[in-house]
Amino acid sequence: MKDGYIDFANSNVGAKLVNALGLPKPMPLERYQAGQPVVKGTVLVGGGGEPQMLEALAGVFQRIGVQTLAHERLPQWVAVANKAGLTTGRWGNNGQPGEKVKALVFDATGLTDSTQSDALYWFFHDAARSLLPCGRVVVLGRPPEACTSPRQATIQRGLEGLTRSLGKELKKGSNAQLVYVAEGAESQVESTLRFLLSPRSAYVSAQVIRIGAPVGDNVAPANWDQPLAGKKVLVTGASRGIGAAIAECMARDGAHVIALDVPQAQEGLNEVAKQIGGTALALDIGSPEAPQKLVDAAKADGGWDVVVHNAGITRDKTIANMKEHLWQLVMNVNLSTQERINEALVESGALKTGGRIVCVSSISGVAGNMGQTNYAVSKAGVVGMVQASAPIFAEKGITINAVAPGFIETAMTAAIPFAIREAGRRMNSMSQGGQPIDVAEAIGWFASPASAGITGNVIRVCGQSLIGA
Amino acid sequence: MKDGYIDFANSNVGAKLVNALGLPKPMPLERYQAGQPVVKGTVLVGGGGEPQMLEALAGVFQRIGVQTLAHERLPQWVAVANKAGLTTGRWGNNGQPGEKVKALVFDATGLTDSTQSDALYWFFHDAARSLLPCGRVVVLGRPPEACTSPRQATIQRGLEGLTRSLGKELKKGSNAQLVYVAEGAESQVESTLRFLLSPRSAYVSAQVIRIGAPVGDNVAPANWDQPLAGKKVLVTGASRGIGAAIAECMARDGAHVIALDVPQAQEGLNEVAKQIGGTALALDIGSPEAPQKLVDAAKADGGWDVVVHNAGITRDKTIANMKEHLWQLVMNVNLSTQERINEALVESGALKTGGRIVCVSSISGVAGNMGQTNYAVSKAGVVGMVQASAPIFAEKGITINAVAPGFIETAMTAAIPFAIREAGRRMNSMSQGGQPIDVAEAIGWFASPASAGITGNVIRVCGQSLIGA
Repeated sequence: MKDGYIDFANSNVGAKLVNALGLPKPMPLERYQAGQPVVKGTVLVGGGGEPQMLEALAGVFQRIGVQTLAHERLPQWVAVANKAGLTTGRWGNNGQPGEKVKALVFDATGLTDSTQSDALYWFFHDAARSLLPCGRVVVLGRPPEACTSPRQATIQRGLEGLTRSLGKELKKGSNAQLVYVAEGAESQVESTLRFLLSPRSAYVSAQVIRIGAPVGDNVAPANWDQPLAGKKVLVTGASRGIGAAIAECMARDGAHVIALDVPQAQEGLNEVAKQIGGTALALDIGSPEAPQKLVDAAKADGGWDVVVHNAGITRDKTIANMKEHLWQLVMNVNLSTQERINEALVESGALKTGGRIVCVSSISGVAGNMGQTNYAVSKAGVVGMVQASAPIFAEKGITINAVAPGFIETAMTAAIPFAIREAGRRMNSMSQGGQPIDVAEAIGWFASPASAGITGNVIRVCGQSLIGA
Repeated sequence: MKDGYIDFANSNVGAKLVNALGLPKPMPLERYQAGQPVVKGTVLVGGGGEPQMLEALAGVFQRIGVQTLAHERLPQWVAVANKAGLTTGRWGNNGQPGEKVKALVFDATGLTDSTQSDALYWFFHDAARSLLPCGRVVVLGRPPEACTSPRQATIQRGLEGLTRSLGKELKKGSNAQLVYVAEGAESQVESTLRFLLSPRSAYVSAQVIRIGAPVGDNVAPANWDQPLAGKKVLVTGASRGIGAAIAECMARDGAHVIALDVPQAQEGLNEVAKQIGGTALALDIGSPEAPQKLVDAAKADGGWDVVVHNAGITRDKTIANMKEHLWQLVMNVNLSTQERINEALVESGALKTGGRIVCVSSISGVAGNMGQTNYAVSKAGVVGMVQASAPIFAEKGITINAVAPGFIETAMTAAIPFAIREAGRRMNSMSQGGQPIDVAEAIGWFASPASAGITGNVIRVCGQSLIGA
């Protein structure tokens, strides 16, 4: 759906009015187009303490083919980068900024005590104004829960305050993320950095991502523009809206998509499947037979690689006004069916080793919402399912993660009354709603065969919505 | 500070205007007064599956001296309650509501599968309209991370979606909380239920609390109106604002308070100390000698029982405009000093076995804030410190927890420009700012000798602010 205000605020007349009235200034977000470079500009690299990710970073940047520069407090970057075959140089001089850059990457894995925090200050103080529009900030740290000393855990946990504040300060379509990399998992970061540094993460901001030891093999795609080549991907609720965008995105990334929706949506479903050269599968996933039918379909197909649980419904009423069958319906479709289907697909082997399950939670599952007790229980339950299933499915070499969308421009949100819709659109760090493709890109990141180190994560696609818990 | 809008919205003329314009309707919140009953009304009890907390609940209600009623889907409550010496009866009949009640307590520990969620529906559907103003909702569950089956973890995690949604739906000054009780820790809930069911928790809503095995002994106070009788409590930053309120609250609850502030604040400090019969201690906690000085002072005092790290400062600027010494100052006062002081007090034994450390984080530490990178890192770091220190201090029989205030009415927030202040005041489920006493009451709950089962918790005092992460 179209948000006319973005165009208006960026027109000649509109920009003047918006400035004069102090209105929000949404910037048209850059979005991924196949064939374009991952990072449209230079990456400035910094670090504090004795940073432990530099060699891994240099390798990733070399493979991405991006130019890097060293902040003056990380002079050792030049040698590390050169060794990896990167041309690089120093950025700025005596506190004077250097050229404008597209991304700021700070390796904070070496911070072991809060008294070292000025390393964060110097890097972001010097560089904040030198970030190009739609810029990227990535801070790498160690997961606090795995730190051996409380002092280390404390400063590592403090990084969340930094990235969440930067997400609110940077404006101009830039975002900021925190990536906790477990010790020994340094080699697992490539798919994540490619996602975060590229326009694929346009509407993801202020998220905390945890990367650990690989679940099964981490397989780098032969072609990073087609990371899902040869993969069979089931997408539920695929006949329209976000589900159709997911199906299209997966197909664009090389997958053969099995597009599923209820029989009543057969027409739209066929259209989506035809357009992307996929297969249409009309099935009511809420029915008791659905899990076995899916197992059979997958096995007939030689097994599936990815399952995306996008199908979900709302039946909003305050709890006092809600009917029991609508509570049950929402719980069944949004949560219980997914539990049954996951168990059936994983236990039968119909979802192959190296498989990926991606669920869809919601900002309402995180923060709760008036009139959505049923929906919020189901979507908070999805978070529980992802976290509790991750270690169990890992034994089969399968990851499970979730995206939690905020305000996404769809036919559904277009039907929301004007004032509430405007509030939803503007109350985030991007001052705009996200697009269905933004949800799809995040799902694609989880679905990648190179994302073996990512499981049990729940990542919001919400432009850093103000709303949370 | 006074929020005149609350009085206005509750006046005859104002209420009409507020209704006509659809403006927020903040209700004057009931607050605790010594000697009043814990619960001013009846508690309606419900449960799902095979609830495991009923006997523990009956014991607590009996000691509190509160009347309970059984929801029709928990008929077994009558027998359990009678056995504990409670007079009780059934509430409602065939879906018709019974009398108005002050609190809804739902034992969800028996829910092991999402298909059982209709138990939640029936209880809250039937009872939502029967909750009196400034009512209380408490849902008891099992911590998802400790559940043995993913199905159980999933529905238990889903409870968060319920309580957070109810917090937004209930209005009229009511709140809703989720209490996860570890298996075997059923006997540890009394201090928490007394806090949550009473007006002491007026501005706490939609929080998730974890109760586990006791750290050291759980000592029930001889007199629950004086839970800190005989205790020596250090409160930093005690000369004014929230710190003074904490000192007063601890003294009201029976403690001897050591009120600490910087030497420049000596006058206000002396006044506070005099008023509450406490001791004034002028000391710059940011100085390198502070930890040892505090150890010496505590030992000269025969040891302290509770330390409240309330002292904190802000020095707000965007990261690009910030000076390094202001970054360092905030980090040192708000975080590094607390790390040093905690270690010194715990290791030396100056903080006694059975001791309590209570820290103050912030909504900015949770969600980040524009212009507060330094403050947000320090306050997110406090969360890390609490979580990482809890298991280590537990070995010494000491708990550590934090409160994270939202918008609290103080001289500081009174100085905020009108429009921003109004937004901060209204953007929460109570449509009003909190009072310093609300922060103090939550600290008192953590500080209680009966709160041995609570450590590593970070609880917001924010009226369920819309703002989060």
